[in-house]
Amino acid sequence: MKPVHQVKTKPGMTTDELCKELSKAGVMGAGRVGKAVDVLEKAISDKECTVFFGLAGCMVPGGMQQILIDMINDGWLDAIVTTGAMVVHDIVEALGTKHEICDTMNDAELHKKGVNRLFDSSLPQNAYMKLEDWLRPVLDKVPREEISIREFLEVLGKNIPSENSWLKTAVSKNIPVFSPGFFDSGLGVMTYFYHQEGPKNHLNISALKDIGEPIKLVQDSKKSAAFLIGGGVPKNHIIQAAQFIDKGHTYGVQITTDRPEPGGLSGASLHEGISWGKFGEASEMVDVIADATIALPLITSALKERLSQSK
Amino acid sequence: MKPVHQVKTKPGMTTDELCKELSKAGVMGAGRVGKAVDVLEKAISDKECTVFFGLAGCMVPGGMQQILIDMINDGWLDAIVTTGAMVVHDIVEALGTKHEICDTMNDAELHKKGVNRLFDSSLPQNAYMKLEDWLRPVLDKVPREEISIREFLEVLGKNIPSENSWLKTAVSKNIPVFSPGFFDSGLGVMTYFYHQEGPKNHLNISALKDIGEPIKLVQDSKKSAAFLIGGGVPKNHIIQAAQFIDKGHTYGVQITTDRPEPGGLSGASLHEGISWGKFGEASEMVDVIADATIALPLITSALKERLSQSK
Amino acid sequence: MKPVHQVKTKPGMTTDELCKELSKAGVMGAGRVGKAVDVLEKAISDKECTVFFGLAGCMVPGGMQQILIDMINDGWLDAIVTTGAMVVHDIVEALGTKHEICDTMNDAELHKKGVNRLFDSSLPQNAYMKLEDWLRPVLDKVPREEISIREFLEVLGKNIPSENSWLKTAVSKNIPVFSPGFFDSGLGVMTYFYHQEGPKNHLNISALKDIGEPIKLVQDSKKSAAFLIGGGVPKNHIIQAAQFIDKGHTYGVQITTDRPEPGGLSGASLHEGISWGKFGEASEMVDVIADATIALPLITSALKERLSQSK
Amino acid sequence: MKPVHQVKTKPGMTTDELCKELSKAGVMGAGRVGKAVDVLEKAISDKECTVFFGLAGCMVPGGMQQILIDMINDGWLDAIVTTGAMVVHDIVEALGTKHEICDTMNDAELHKKGVNRLFDSSLPQNAYMKLEDWLRPVLDKVPREEISIREFLEVLGKNIPSENSWLKTAVSKNIPVFSPGFFDSGLGVMTYFYHQEGPKNHLNISALKDIGEPIKLVQDSKKSAAFLIGGGVPKNHIIQAAQFIDKGHTYGVQITTDRPEPGGLSGASLHEGISWGKFGEASEMVDVIADATIALPLITSALKERLSQSK
Repeated sequence: MKPVHQVKTKPGMTTDELCKELSKAGVMGAGRVGKAVDVLEKAISDKECTVFFGLAGCMVPGGMQQILIDMINDGWLDAIVTTGAMVVHDIVEALGTKHEICDTMNDAELHKKGVNRLFDSSLPQNAYMKLEDWLRPVLDKVPREEISIREFLEVLGKNIPSENSWLKTAVSKNIPVFSPGFFDSGLGVMTYFYHQEGPKNHLNISALKDIGEPIKLVQDSKKSAAFLIGGGVPKNHIIQAAQFIDKGHTYGVQITTDRPEPGGLSGASLHEGISWGKFGEASEMVDVIADATIALPLITSALKERLSQSK
Repeated sequence: MKPVHQVKTKPGMTTDELCKELSKAGVMGAGRVGKAVDVLEKAISDKECTVFFGLAGCMVPGGMQQILIDMINDGWLDAIVTTGAMVVHDIVEALGTKHEICDTMNDAELHKKGVNRLFDSSLPQNAYMKLEDWLRPVLDKVPREEISIREFLEVLGKNIPSENSWLKTAVSKNIPVFSPGFFDSGLGVMTYFYHQEGPKNHLNISALKDIGEPIKLVQDSKKSAAFLIGGGVPKNHIIQAAQFIDKGHTYGVQITTDRPEPGGLSGASLHEGISWGKFGEASEMVDVIADATIALPLITSALKERLSQSK
Repeated sequence: MKPVHQVKTKPGMTTDELCKELSKAGVMGAGRVGKAVDVLEKAISDKECTVFFGLAGCMVPGGMQQILIDMINDGWLDAIVTTGAMVVHDIVEALGTKHEICDTMNDAELHKKGVNRLFDSSLPQNAYMKLEDWLRPVLDKVPREEISIREFLEVLGKNIPSENSWLKTAVSKNIPVFSPGFFDSGLGVMTYFYHQEGPKNHLNISALKDIGEPIKLVQDSKKSAAFLIGGGVPKNHIIQAAQFIDKGHTYGVQITTDRPEPGGLSGASLHEGISWGKFGEASEMVDVIADATIALPLITSALKERLSQSK
Repeated sequence: MKPVHQVKTKPGMTTDELCKELSKAGVMGAGRVGKAVDVLEKAISDKECTVFFGLAGCMVPGGMQQILIDMINDGWLDAIVTTGAMVVHDIVEALGTKHEICDTMNDAELHKKGVNRLFDSSLPQNAYMKLEDWLRPVLDKVPREEISIREFLEVLGKNIPSENSWLKTAVSKNIPVFSPGFFDSGLGVMTYFYHQEGPKNHLNISALKDIGEPIKLVQDSKKSAAFLIGGGVPKNHIIQAAQFIDKGHTYGVQITTDRPEPGGLSGASLHEGISWGKFGEASEMVDVIADATIALPLITSALKERLSQSK
C-alpha cells in the first residue's frame, strides 16, 4: 500500500501545484480532484482521444460560462452533450442579460418583480422576451427539411450575436453539440409555438436523426473520454455511446453531488459502467463528489497550467 | 405556532395511520412524508385536477413497477413524463426478464458474465437482445408520417405482450406519456439503427410535435398537480408546463435525494418554482428528501387506503 | 442471483406488511429498510443479544420521543449512548414545553421573539430557564464523590417529574445511558455554572469512569447489536465497544443521511467496521440512507407488529 | 441586485486568484468558497478576534495534517475543539505510522491483514500498539489531582516526540485544545484501561472542569469566529460558546456535506444559529457544502497568500 501524502501548501501556489498535492494525497475528495486533473490531462493531451463533455446542472447562472468557453477555445473538447437549459442560460448571457446574485428566497416577492430564481442566482423574466425576439428570425433561417437536433443547434449557434457564448464557440469550431432532450426547455417551448403557427413555420426536427452520431464518434476514435458535469441525459448519452465498442471509454471523470444509493444514473459511479461495457476494466475513471462550481474552476485552471506547459 | 406532535405507533397499524401521525408531527422528513400524502390525496380526489406524474430515477429495477401500474389503474394519474430508461426497464420486465439482486460490485466480473449493474440491482445483457427482437416488428407498425414521441410511445405500449407494464397500462387507459429525451436510451439506439437501414425503415419522429401538449393540458384544467419522482427532464417538463397560466400548478410533491445548493433543477425546491410562476403563492407543495424506493411505497399504500375510504 | 420482487401494496396494509414487501424487493432503499426490520427483529427477539441504541440527530424536536419511550418500555434496548442535546430536548418536553412547528427561517426575527430554531422545528428560549429551575435542586442531590457520566444521568433521570421522557423511562428500567460528550450541551453548561459556584457545589464527574462499561457489556454478552440513529459520539462509542471481542457486533443497523466519501465516521458504512473488528464477516448489517424521522417510525411500527406476534 | 461574475481562469493562476474569482461569482458553491476565504481573512487578520477551530471528520487520514499544523504555526487559531479520533490519527502519524491509500473495500480481507479502513484510506492495526506503548509512560506523568480534558491534552501534546503533530504544535503555542467527548476514542479506551489498573493509576479527569472555558474566551474577546470542519461535538461546543454574549460570533465558516433537512446540528446552517444568539444578525457567515479535503486546501492556500501579503 502507498502512504497518504500530507498535502503541503504555500503562499502564492498555483492551482496546479495544489492539484498535484491533492493527487499525491490520494484519498477522499482531495485524491479524487487530483486524479481528475491527471486523467483529464491524459485524455486532452492525447491526440487520439475524442473527449466528450457532458454539460448539465446550472453552470452559466453559477458563473462558469467563461470556463466553458475557454475549454472549447483551448481545444479540449471534441463533442458536447447538453440540456436545453444550458443553452437557454448561455444565449441569455450572450444577448446581454446577466444572471444575478439573488439575496432572498421570498419567491412570491420575486415573482411579483418578474425575477426567476435558480437557488441563489436569478434571471429577470424579461430575458425570455429578449430571447424570443432573437429566436424568431433565427427560426426563419432553419431549413425546413428533416434536420437533427445537432443541426438545429448549429443554426442557433451561428446566429448568436456575441462571442460570449459557449454554444457559439462550439459551433464556430465545428464541435458537435447534442441534446436529445433539448426541446424540454424555454427555447423548446418558444420553438414549438413558432412551429405551430402554420405550414410556413413547420419545422421538421427529427428526434432520431443524430442519436447514433456519438456512437459513431466513439467507434471512429482510438480512444475516448467522458468528462461529465452533472447527470441526466448528457451523462447517459455519453457513456452509452461507448457500449458499442469492446473497451468502452478509456477515460472518465464526473463531478456530481448526487447519491448512488437510490439507483438513478445521475448518482451512479462511473465504475458501474464497466459492467455495461461503457468503460473497460483498464479505463481510468474518477467520481468527484463536489459542487461543480467549486471543482470545475479548480480542475480547469490546473489543467490550463499543465496543458500550456506541455505545449 | 403549532406544537410538534410526538408520533404514536402501535402493532398492526396501517401505513395510512402511520402517515397521519407523521403529518401531525409536522416537521422534518416525517412531516414532509405526511404532508405528501395529504397533498396527493387532495390532488387525486379532486375531479377538476389534472395530475402529472414525473417518473425518473430507477423505479422498476428498484421494485416499484407494480406500484406504478397500480397508480395508473387506480386512476390517479392523468399524464406521465418519463425517461427512456424507465420505459426500457418496464418493457424488459414485461418481456419476462426479471431484474436481479446484485450481490457484488465487481463490475469487471459482472461484465464477463454479461450482467449490467444498477447500484445493487442488475439486468442480464441478453435482456437487450430480447428487447430488440420484440422491438423490430413493432417498429414496422409505426406510422411513417410525422408523429410525436407521445404517439411513438403509444405504439410501443399497445404492442407490449403482457399486463406487467406501466407503459401498456397507461396507453390502454389513454394516459398520455411524454418523454422529450426518450431516444437517449437503449430503445432509442435500437430504433435509430432500424431507422438507418433504408428508406423503408425511415421514421419521422418529431422532437417538437408534442412539446406543447403538457402546457395545453394544464391550460385546459381548472387545477393541476405535479407528482415527481426524481428530477431531470420529467421534472422540468412538468413544472415548466404550468408557467403559462397565472396560478401555476395547484399541488406539488417531489421525492428526491438531490441537493439544492449546486443550483441544478433536479435538486431545486418546488418552492423556487413560485418565482417562475410554475407554482403559485397559494399552491400546496412539499419536497420529500428521500430515496423514492422508501417513500413511494409508504405514500402510495397510505393513499390507497385513504382514497378507497373516500369512495 | 435472486430476482427483485416488485412491491405489492393494498389499502389498509400494515406497516409490517409493507416492510415485508420492501424486504422482498431486496434492493436500494426499499431493500435496506426491509432488511433493517428483519435484522432488528432477530436482534431484539434474541434473548442472548445485548442491543445498544445510538441516539443522535434531532429526534425529540422531530416528533420521535414517544417512539423512543416505547422502544425502551417494550424491552427492545439494553444500553443507550446519546448526546447532551438528546437529553436536553427530552427533559424540556418532560417539563411541559412542547417543541413547535417553525414556519419561518427569519432567524433574526425568531431571536427577537426568543425562539430557537432546529431546522423547521423550534423551542422557546424560556424552556432553558425552566430547565435550569428544575436542574439546580436536582444537582443538589448529585453525590459529591467521583461518579461517572452514566451515574450522573441516572440522577437526572430519576428526578424527571413526568413519564414523558425517554431518559426517565430508561433509568426506571435500569437501562444504562452513556454520553461521553454529554457536558457539551445546554445541560452541561448549566451544570458547569452550578459546579463553579463554590466548594459546596463542586461535582466530581469523571470523564473516564464509565468509558469501559460498554466494552464490558459486549464482552459479557453472547451476541450484541448496534442500532444507530445518526453518527457522532454515540455511533463511535457503540461500534468501538465490539472491537475487543473476536466476532464484533452480531447485528448492525444504522439510519443516516451522511455521505461516506469524505471519510468521517458518521457517514461510514457499517461494513467498514469489519476491517476494524467492530463487526465480523458473518455479522448482519445494513445502512439505511434516510432521514430517521421517516425510517424510524416505519421500522419500529413494523417491529412492534412483528414482535407482538412472536410473543 | 448584483450580476453573477463569470469566473476567469488562466494558466499559472494562484489559488488565491482563483478564490477571488469565485468570490466575485457570488453564487452556489463557487461563491461560498470565495466568501469563506474573505470571511476567514477578516477573522484571522483582526487582532481583536478570537478564532475557534472545530476539527472533526477525517482530516489526517485524508492528507490534511500539514495544513492543520501550518494553520496553527501561522497563528491563525486561538482555540481548537476536536474529537478523540482527530487526536488519535495525529499522534499515530507523529509516532511514525503513515496512513495508507486503501485500494480495496474487502473488509474481511483487510481485517485478516490487520488493516483498519477509513473509507479509502487505512491504518495498520499495530499503529494502536505503538500508540499504547507511547501512551502508558505519558499517563504516568499525568497529575493525579483533578484536571480538565484540556489539561490532559496538554500533557499528551507535550510528550509527542515529533513536530509532525497538530496537537503538539497547538500545545507548544499555548493554544487551548478542548474535546468534551475525547474519551470516546482509542486513546480514551487505552487511558481507561490504565486508569483501572489500581489506585496508583487512578486519574481524576473531570468531564466538567473546562466546559465553561470556551464561553469565557468568547466573553473576554471583542470579536470571535467559528471555523468549523464537520459537525458533532466540536461544532456544537464552539457555536454554543457564543450564546452567552449579545452579539454571538462575529464570523462563521463551516465546511460540511451533511444535509440540514433531518434537523441534526451537524447539517444545520450557521444562519440558524442567529435564532439561538450563537451568531448575530450582523455576523458574516457561510456554509461551504463540500468535502473538507477539497475545500480546506483550496481555502487555506488562498489565505496563506492573502495573509502573507497583508503583513
